[in-house]
Formats: sequence, structure tokens, C-alpha cells
Amino acid sequence: MSLNDDEPASLYRALFRPESVAIVGASGRGVGVTARPLRFLRQHRFAGRIHPVNPRYDEIDGIPCFPDLASIPDGVDTVLSLVPAAQTAQIVQEAAAVGARVVVVFASGFAEVGEEGRRMQAELDAIARRTGVRIVGPNCQGLIHVRNQFFGTFTNAADREMHGTSGVAYVGQSGAVGGSMLDLAAEMGLSLTAWASTGNQANLDLVEVAEAMITDDQIKVVLMYAEGIADGARFVRLARRAAQAGKRLVLLRSGRSSTGKLAAASHTGAMLGDDLALVAAAERYGVILVGDVNELLSVGAALAAPAPLRGSRLGVITASGGAGILLTDHAEDNGLEVPPLGEGTTTQLAALVPAFGAVANPVDITAQAFSTPTAMQDLAEICRLTAADEAVDSVAFILTMVIGQRALDVAQMLAALARDGLDKPLWIVWLASREQTADARAVLREAGIPVFASVGDLARTLARVVPGPTRAVADVADDPEAAAALLADTPDRLDKIFSALAVDRASPVLAARGADVAAIVSGRPGPFAMKINAPSLTHKSDIGGVRLDVAPEQAETVFAELAAIADQHGITDFAGVDIEPMARPGLELIVGATSSGDGYPAIVSVGLGGTATEVLADVAATAAPIDAAQATDLLRRLKSWPLLDGFRGRPPADVAAVTHAVSAVSRMAAAASGHRFEFEINPLIVHAAGEGATAADVLVHTAPAPDERDS
Amino acid sequence: MSLNDDEPASLYRALFRPESVAIVGASGRGVGVTARPLRFLRQHRFAGRIHPVNPRYDEIDGIPCFPDLASIPDGVDTVLSLVPAAQTAQIVQEAAAVGARVVVVFASGFAEVGEEGRRMQAELDAIARRTGVRIVGPNCQGLIHVRNQFFGTFTNAADREMHGTSGVAYVGQSGAVGGSMLDLAAEMGLSLTAWASTGNQANLDLVEVAEAMITDDQIKVVLMYAEGIADGARFVRLARRAAQAGKRLVLLRSGRSSTGKLAAASHTGAMLGDDLALVAAAERYGVILVGDVNELLSVGAALAAPAPLRGSRLGVITASGGAGILLTDHAEDNGLEVPPLGEGTTTQLAALVPAFGAVANPVDITAQAFSTPTAMQDLAEICRLTAADEAVDSVAFILTMVIGQRALDVAQMLAALARDGLDKPLWIVWLASREQTADARAVLREAGIPVFASVGDLARTLARVVPGPTRAVADVADDPEAAAALLADTPDRLDKIFSALAVDRASPVLAARGADVAAIVSGRPGPFAMKINAPSLTHKSDIGGVRLDVAPEQAETVFAELAAIADQHGITDFAGVDIEPMARPGLELIVGATSSGDGYPAIVSVGLGGTATEVLADVAATAAPIDAAQATDLLRRLKSWPLLDGFRGRPPADVAAVTHAVSAVSRMAAAASGHRFEFEINPLIVHAAGEGATAADVLVHTAPAPDERDS
Repeated sequence: MSLNDDEPASLYRALFRPESVAIVGASGRGVGVTARPLRFLRQHRFAGRIHPVNPRYDEIDGIPCFPDLASIPDGVDTVLSLVPAAQTAQIVQEAAAVGARVVVVFASGFAEVGEEGRRMQAELDAIARRTGVRIVGPNCQGLIHVRNQFFGTFTNAADREMHGTSGVAYVGQSGAVGGSMLDLAAEMGLSLTAWASTGNQANLDLVEVAEAMITDDQIKVVLMYAEGIADGARFVRLARRAAQAGKRLVLLRSGRSSTGKLAAASHTGAMLGDDLALVAAAERYGVILVGDVNELLSVGAALAAPAPLRGSRLGVITASGGAGILLTDHAEDNGLEVPPLGEGTTTQLAALVPAFGAVANPVDITAQAFSTPTAMQDLAEICRLTAADEAVDSVAFILTMVIGQRALDVAQMLAALARDGLDKPLWIVWLASREQTADARAVLREAGIPVFASVGDLARTLARVVPGPTRAVADVADDPEAAAALLADTPDRLDKIFSALAVDRASPVLAARGADVAAIVSGRPGPFAMKINAPSLTHKSDIGGVRLDVAPEQAETVFAELAAIADQHGITDFAGVDIEPMARPGLELIVGATSSGDGYPAIVSVGLGGTATEVLADVAATAAPIDAAQATDLLRRLKSWPLLDGFRGRPPADVAAVTHAVSAVSRMAAAASGHRFEFEINPLIVHAAGEGATAADVLVHTAPAPDERDS
Repeated sequence: MSLNDDEPASLYRALFRPESVAIVGASGRGVGVTARPLRFLRQHRFAGRIHPVNPRYDEIDGIPCFPDLASIPDGVDTVLSLVPAAQTAQIVQEAAAVGARVVVVFASGFAEVGEEGRRMQAELDAIARRTGVRIVGPNCQGLIHVRNQFFGTFTNAADREMHGTSGVAYVGQSGAVGGSMLDLAAEMGLSLTAWASTGNQANLDLVEVAEAMITDDQIKVVLMYAEGIADGARFVRLARRAAQAGKRLVLLRSGRSSTGKLAAASHTGAMLGDDLALVAAAERYGVILVGDVNELLSVGAALAAPAPLRGSRLGVITASGGAGILLTDHAEDNGLEVPPLGEGTTTQLAALVPAFGAVANPVDITAQAFSTPTAMQDLAEICRLTAADEAVDSVAFILTMVIGQRALDVAQMLAALARDGLDKPLWIVWLASREQTADARAVLREAGIPVFASVGDLARTLARVVPGPTRAVADVADDPEAAAALLADTPDRLDKIFSALAVDRASPVLAARGADVAAIVSGRPGPFAMKINAPSLTHKSDIGGVRLDVAPEQAETVFAELAAIADQHGITDFAGVDIEPMARPGLELIVGATSSGDGYPAIVSVGLGGTATEVLADVAATAAPIDAAQATDLLRRLKSWPLLDGFRGRPPADVAAVTHAVSAVSRMAAAASGHRFEFEINPLIVHAAGEGATAADVLVHTAPAPDERDS
């Protein structure tokens, strides 16, 4: 299913701009599923040709009905299939034969019901691959493009007026959730431009549909609901293309927690799992991740604002001082600011706001603001003035129990403001029930002004949507030499890796027998660290297998003690004892890289090292590769960053050496990302500034080679 | 404003069960504010006497209207005052004169508008104190008790049918937010039993109203919205009384954040007390804290469930596999479980759920479940079976695009289930717009079944409502002896404190001059720690003022170096150098206690000590006093708990010594909690199990005595 660069645009036209639609299994009866696609196409004034296909009818609702697809004289672009699972393959065959480009299969009864269903579903995919026809579904709810007036769906959520001006599209797997999205989006004032439910994804998945969507000039945001995105490479390609096209992707994924659990089950180094790779890839390419249906829609609504949101500084207008303060609390919780307005603004506001209100920020207009004869003009001017202030990037207007005619007046005022074109987004939080404000909300919906359900919802949404600090992302080169060393299972692998990384490494020497010890320690600077060498033993300190600060004259005795410990613990692959000079002191970090080899980028991580790593979980991770500047950003995300930066008069650590190491590891990992591996320096001992950093212990797992531990 | 134990019940009757109500300034004109209280009282069939008072009318809407309160022949319990601010004091005087017990003052124009308003407001309070009449407001929206059919309010949110069967009451300061609460509660199916808006709180505040509410047998939950609870002692008394009465309090506070506090200060002048103390007091007495309007209502709705929630195990029923998985994710995020159902249950479910659904947990009933002839009976049985399973404590039913007649059928089925009485709570999450499900939601509302807006909302709500582990809270005695030592500013204060606490303390000896050093170190076990002694110097290590591991023979030299450092830094109160033997090694903790002296309990805290404390902020705090078992619970909240508990084969630390110290400090703090102070042991060095813990450095601030540092 590779796509060349033209294919997404071509797929978009096939999916969302058909000129003729055949509905196989259509009926005119009542409000049932088989009647709906025809009804929706007509209700929303589809401009192309509509051909019901059903041998039992000559016509349906006044439209000629054909016995089969082959009988349609003027060709078919898209086939909507309402027939049961068992007859579907036949319909897809016929659709391909008459030159249709897309078949939407609504029927359930495929892979979700068992073996026979899986076979039938595989057959659909096989026909599609053989003939070139693309299949949406099965077990899906179809396709909508509101602006193109195409409604190839049976979801009853389509049974409402829609204008689709938001520029926000939705694509998701679950049919039921998809219908809810369409309906709940409309409720909050987000009129989706296009919508797709991909169901069982026999032949076409949501990633490919999203790639098609972003080629549409009318679509600037794609909301995605995924139950799994197994192919990381295609997800990354989609994210890259969206970023290049200046479009935003927002992703709601379910099954996070079980994925997390699976990942955690593997190994200690696997604090970082598959979900982390998705999160890192999303972060790198600007995909916004959300956790719930309403969060997906709120973020979509915020991104649909006619004026772009440029920053996190919020002007707040409210008649309820309490609600304004609540929003201020949530703003701070979410890293937003509610800064004082400029003096020019407050002076002008003072002429419009009652004396016992407030013109700072929040602007407290008081309940009286709604009941003066010039209330609506004044409110409009208050919104305009606040939005014009250079201190803020957007304006939130919180309404409480403004209902009835007054609510309608306010909505019309806001709609007029939006039409005139504010150059900053205006957000509404309306703390009154929908039943009491239905007319007003309809006006706002028509004007494309979304209404947030709570101040917390608004603040969390803006925190996700606010653009991050703009750092020109350097094109960081992979390091194939280090990667080759990583992936080659040679005895000198670690020497080669560290030579390529240019990171200092404490090099232990193996004493296989007690008799070797004297020669190893003689003439080297003590004291020494001595560690049991046994590939099967992953946590040496747990059994007392690590001894530190061993004086040269004690080294032989310690060897004997460690050998005895290994023996007591039944360690059969005891290879001896590694001896190395004690590392120079410093702060212990952990630097890791993992890749699942499934197309997601490799992940590089850094955290507080040693025992504290696992206890305090102060780890930051991102997609590899990164340069030293990005590695610095990563380090700064650590809570323990001040410990590196010269906290309380301590000498600062050699941050440059750390960022070099993190970047080098990331570049190696990026080059090796087609493979499955784990690489971990734990600890990386960071010395004082200018004195470098030393990798004191290293863990490498590569697949399919067996686990290997070198220390 | 002290209350004896009878007063809350008496106040409840006065506020919420008047037998006669006078409305001063009433009018019959239109829908304006002055017409509303009369209209609402009649609309909701208030059974007592209603007397409009307005010299301009003889009657309003057929009810005789009196020229003034004194003219009412048969007495007045409650006066609703709609007159402007300037005339209010007169009305309150007259109300008191005719024996009214409560005056609700709706007028604004008091403390919120400036000096003259503050004066008028103080006058109202003075009249109330002089006469015994209680004043609600001014600048408030009044009182409602739905079950008592009393509507002393002008909020237009009261303009709807209400049955008030939830057992949930609301009291809050902000009028505007209060109206929203009433309206939004109704929208989500939570019909409040009583409601109060206390406005400027001249004479009666929300804490006192809440105390009155919990004496009402019809009320089992009180939702509170506070912009400030300055008097910690009264808040604690309320929380205690609620706990004793088996009632739940839920508190939404605004002005939590630093910017929110600033905004609050300009809005009401009110400040929340020390937020940490409030949080600790809330936790101790089981007050649930929430952060937003919808969270307050969701928690209220969950607590209103007819069957009590006993645990965190959730059964999930859904026709949307995706939505079920999403809820599972959120359950895990929030510490809830979605456990497998028992075999008996799954066997019975299998007879009702389509083969391609799922009978595990989540139970996936598939869309087909809604369209069979016996759908509603089957769904009811599925709910019953799931709720009956011993593996779950409550059941969540997630509906997606179930709308129209089918929605109504489902709602009626659920209402019937609720009537029959499930013995576990049943939660609904309905992912369809309110406009598409209005009739169905009305049925659920009537049945007292709340509808949650998202799976995340449900999971977060349940996490707040689930009862915590039940530990019989021992009555922990205060330690007045240690408190007396703490509060007495004597030279030997620290000796006395630590003697009372029975905690070991590293006792430094001060070398005032270099010549003193030899005598101090001779004959004592070295090496030594040496620290500049200068009261003005709070962070000695920042300037190199601490030297560790000093050998006896170097001590004089180090004295000279430290003296030079003090000199370089212009420290004028250099008193010499403290010398003490190096503490035995161990894990460094910080143990602290603070009290703001404003009636909130003193706070005891424990965290990872030393430099790491400030960097990693791994601190747990709670209200003092606590016993050793509670101190253990506190320690277990630390991320770094494993470091104490023998992580990775390390010897476990002397946890008993830590919990003794934490408890001892907390008992001292509790006894001193009427005063303002800070006390901090930093670090408390915890040695290996059985070897105790040593307070290596101590910081004490008491007020009004000047700050003092001893180390």
C-alpha cells in the first residue's frame, strides 16, 4: 500500500468528491439503515448522480432503481454497499468491473465475528488489491464531505443541518464513536468539514484517509481516533506531510493503558514502550495527543478559530468575578498566562465597565453590563479592546446565566464581531444549560464560534494548542557507523560503539580467575570497582555482586567473595569479575535509546541515573535523532536539571559532555531504528564542567541476537 | 458568631423552612428581577404565607400588598429584600422589629463597590448582631429549598420544574456561578435539594449555611463554592460535624493559584487561607476537593447515587468497543479497575449478548443489542447481571448515538431499573448531543440518574468519590510540652524541643575563635563537620560555609578558611564555627511542621531531604497530629519510599525512627497550632534499621519573635 506523492490527492477525490454514487441494497422504507444513505444524499443536496441498486424496486423515492451495478448506464465512482457480509465480495467484484474507484462496505459480520469473517474480510482486501478499487470498511459508517455535499453514511448523526465551514475533518475507526463525534462536534459549535469511519480497515486505514484529507484545501485540521496505529513509518509519513502542508493533526487513541502495561512487562529499560514511541513521534511532528472524545473536539474547535492562536496569554472577560478567577486558576495550572492589560486598554475599558467592575484582567464587566440600553455595543467594544491589547494572544468570554433573549443578543453580537474579523481568537465558555441557550448556541454555531463547557476545558485545550517555542529543527544526521557497531554482535562491540560515539567509557578488565587479579590491579590507580561478570545476571547489586572502593591489596580477597556469592546464587555462567578503577565522582545520569523496529522513530531518553532513576522516574524522552541543542532542551525537562546546572552554589556539571553523549546516542539510534534494540548507559557519570562524562555501565539488547550485558 | 450544637438546626429551619415570607420591593411587572421571587414562590407552590410589600401597590397578582413590614398582621419569618442598597439597612431594622429571623438582601452596591458600600455592609452586620436577625447577602441570589418548596431567589435558573430528590445541596458565594450551578446540575440530571448564594457574606457565610444544611435529613451531600475560607477553625468544625453526621462535603475553591489569588484579592478582597492547610484539613475530614464547576456537579451526582459506591472496581457495558476501551484507559489513569467478571456472570451474559460481542469486561453488547424485539428486557438483564457480579462495585453504561425513540426506550428501561433498586450505582455516559436525546435525558433526570459527559469525566469523578482505605483514625494526643518549648524563645529551646520529641540531634559546639578549636575536637571522634555560625546566613553551603569530613588536625585551618569566607561575604553577625562529629551516614529526609495560626490545622510534612528536596519536590504533607501508623502512610506516599524500604537489596532504613520523629513533630505542631510558626529538621539522617535517626540541622521560625536559625 505504498503511495506516491500524487496518490493522496487522487484518493481524496475518489473518497470525498465522487460524481456518481450507487447505493446497493437501498430501500425507501422508513428511517432504517438501508434508507438512510439515499435520504442523506438528497437531504444534503448531493450534486452528483445517485443510483439506487436493488432488484426488488424499479424506483425509490422517484429515482430509478437498477437491478445491479452493471445495468447503470453512465458509470459509477463510488458504491455504497448495504448488503450483508456474505454478498459483499460479489458487490466489490461488480463495482470493480464497472470502474468504481471506492466501495464503502457498511455490513458487519467480518473480522470482528471470527474465523469465517476474517476469511471474508481478507477476500475483500484481495479483490481490492487485484482490481485497484479501494474499500472503506467493512463494519464502518462511511464517508461525509459536507462542503462537497457528499454523504455516504448511515449514521443518524448526519440527520441535521451542517455547513462544514470549520476546516476540521475527522477520521476514526470505531463507527459508534464516529457518529458521536459528528453529533457532539455540532453540539459544541464545530461543524466538521469532512468525516470518515474506517471500521475494520480491510483495505484502507485511517492513516491513509488522513493523508488524503490533508490534500484538501478546505481542510486544515484532521482529528483522528485510533484503536491502534501499528505501522509507525506510515504514521510518521502522515505527520511529516501534514507538517509540510501546514495542517494540524490531533490524535485520540484508545488502548493506551494496556499498551503501556505490555511495554512495562518486558524489562527495566522498558520504562519506554511502544506508546512512548508514538508519543515521541507525535511531539516531534507537532501531532497533538488528547485523551478523550470531548478533548479531541475541543482541540479541533480551538484550531478551527478563524484567527490563529499565537501564544499562551489570555484576556478574560466575564460578568462573574468568581468564574474569571476560576479560569485564572486553570490557566496557571496549564501554563497559560492572564497578564495585566496595557494602560491604554484599561483606560478605554474604564469608560465601558461599571465602576464596581474591574478593567484589569480578568475584565469583570458585572451583571449590569447586560442590562444597559447600549449593552451589546459596549460588550462588542469591550471584546474588541481586549483583543487588540498587545499583552494577550486570545480572549475568553465567560457567560454564566445569560439566557433567553439576552443570550440571543449576545450571540448575535459575538457572531457580528467574528464576521468583522478579530485578529485574535475569541473563546466562549457558557455556564448555562443548552436547553436555556439553544437559540443563542445555534447562532454561534452558524458563525463558527465554538462554546467550551467549562473553564478547565478551555484552559486544557489552549495548553494543547498553543504553539511551542519555535526552534528551527536542525536536520540532524544519523550515525550509521555507530549503528553498525551497535547491531553487529561482535566481542568488541562496545569498544566500537563508544569509539564512534566519542564518549568516555570506564573499561573494565575481566579477571576470569583469582590468580589474574594481581596482574590486573598492579600499576593501575586504585581503588577499584569489582563486579561479577555473568551474562544472566542483570541486577548485580541486588545480590551483592558489586563492590566499590576496593583497595589493591584487598582485590584478591574480594574476588573470592564475589565468586562465592555467584556460587551461592546458583549463577552458572559466572565468567569472572570485572575490575576497573573507581570512576571519578559526579552526578549519575541514565542515557538510553530504544527502538521497536516497527517504523516509529527510535527514542532517546535521559534521566537521573542510578537507583534513583527507577524510584523517582525523572526521565525525559524524545524521538531520535536530536542535536546538542535539542538534547539541552531534553535535559531541561528533567526535574533534576538544577542539579546539573550548579544548584545552590555547587559546581555546574559538564552539561556539554552530556548533551554530546545524548545526541551521539540518538544519532546512532536513528540510524539503527529499523531494528529492535535497547541501549542504555547507566550510569553516565557527569563530572564537573570541562571534565567530561564517563559511561560507567552499559546495557545492550539487540534482536534477534540474544540479550547481552557488558559491564 | 459562635454556634452551640442546636444552632445549626435552628438556622436551617430559619433559612430553608419559613412559614411566611415577605417580599419587600416586589412587583408584578414582567419578568424583571423584582417580579421573580413572587413568581417563583407561586410557581413552585410554596405552602406558607406570601406577603408582597410595596407602598405603590394594593395587590400584586391577586395577593394583597402591604405598604411596609409592620403592616403585615400575622408576622413574618423571612424577608426577601429587593430594595436598593441605600434603603436596605432600614428594611433590616424593620424586619428585626417585626420578629423576622432572616433577611435575604439581593441588592448589590455594598463592599464590592468601595468605601461607602463597605460602611453600609458593616452597618447591616451590626444591625444583625444587635437584633439577632440573620442576613443572607447582600449582593446574593438567595435561598432555595426544593423539597420545602421555598424559593427565595431571583436567579432565572429557578425557572424550571425541579423535584429536588437528589439529597444534594449547594452553597456558594458568587451569585452568577450559583445560578449556573443550579442550571447545569439540572442539565446533567442532578436535581438539587437546596441551594444558597451567600454573596458578600456580611453576616452569614457559606460555612455556617453548610452547617445548617447538614442538619437537614433530606440533605446528604453539600457542594460548596468558596472564594475564600479565612477561618480555618470553623471550616474544620463544619467538616467534623459533616463527618459525624455521615454527610459528604465537596468543595470547589477559586483563587487557588498565585495569579488566581491576585485576581481574587481584587475581586472580593477575600483570600483563601493557606491552601496547603485547607487541602490537609479537607483530606483529614473527608472533604472532597474539586477544581471546576462541572467537576463539583459530577461529584455531587455520583454521591447522589441511590446505592452507595463501595469501591473502585467498575463494570462497563457498551455497544461501542472503542468507547469501552477508552473508559478502561481512563479508569487505569485514575486508579480504578475494570476487572474480569465472574464465570457465572459471563455465562449468563453470553445468552444475552450477540456472539460477536464480548462478555468479559467491558461487556460489548454491540449495536445489534438495541434492535432485537426483546432489546430492552435484555439490556435491563445485562445491567442487572453485571451489577450483581461480586467483582464490581458499580456499573457504567456508555451510550453513543442512541437517539430518538430508542433513546427514550433505553432511558425508561434504566429508570425502571433504578426504581426496582439496584444495590450498586449505575452510571450513564451518553455520547450524543442533548438536543438529540432531550426526551430521554428528561426521563433519566426524573429518575435521578445522572448522565456524565465523557468517559474521562466519569473516571475522574469516581476516583474522587471512591472511599479511601478505612483506617480507624486514632485520637492522637497533642504534645504541649514540646509545643511550649517550641514557642518559648529561650537559648536552650532546641535542646528542650528535642528532649521532648525524643529525637536524636547532632549537637554542634560553637568555636567562637580559632583558639577554641583544639579543645573542642580533642578527644572527640572525628572527622568533623564545620559550619559557619551566623544568624543571617540561611543557606550556608551556597557560599562554601559548610565543610565536611574535616580531620581533627585540619580543624584549625578550616576555621580560618571559614572565617575568611564569612568576611569575604560581608557577614557581620559571624559568631564563629559550629563543630560537630560527622553524622553517621544514612538517607537524608526533611521533616517539617508549619502553622498559619488561623484556625486551620498545623501541617506536618516529610520528604526526601538535602539538596534533592527542593529540586525534586518529593514531599508529602498532612494535618497534624498523626500517630506513627499515619506517619507510615505519609512516608509511603513519597516516590522515594522505596529508598527507605530496602530498595534493590539495600539495607532498609530505620523507618520506625522516622515515623516516631514525624509523629512527635506533628504532636508538637498540633499543640502549637494556635500560633504561627515554621519548624524544619533538614536533614533528618535516617540510619540503617535499628540504628535510629539523627536531626542534623534544624530551622525554627516563630512569630512574633524574629526568625531564628540554629544549626
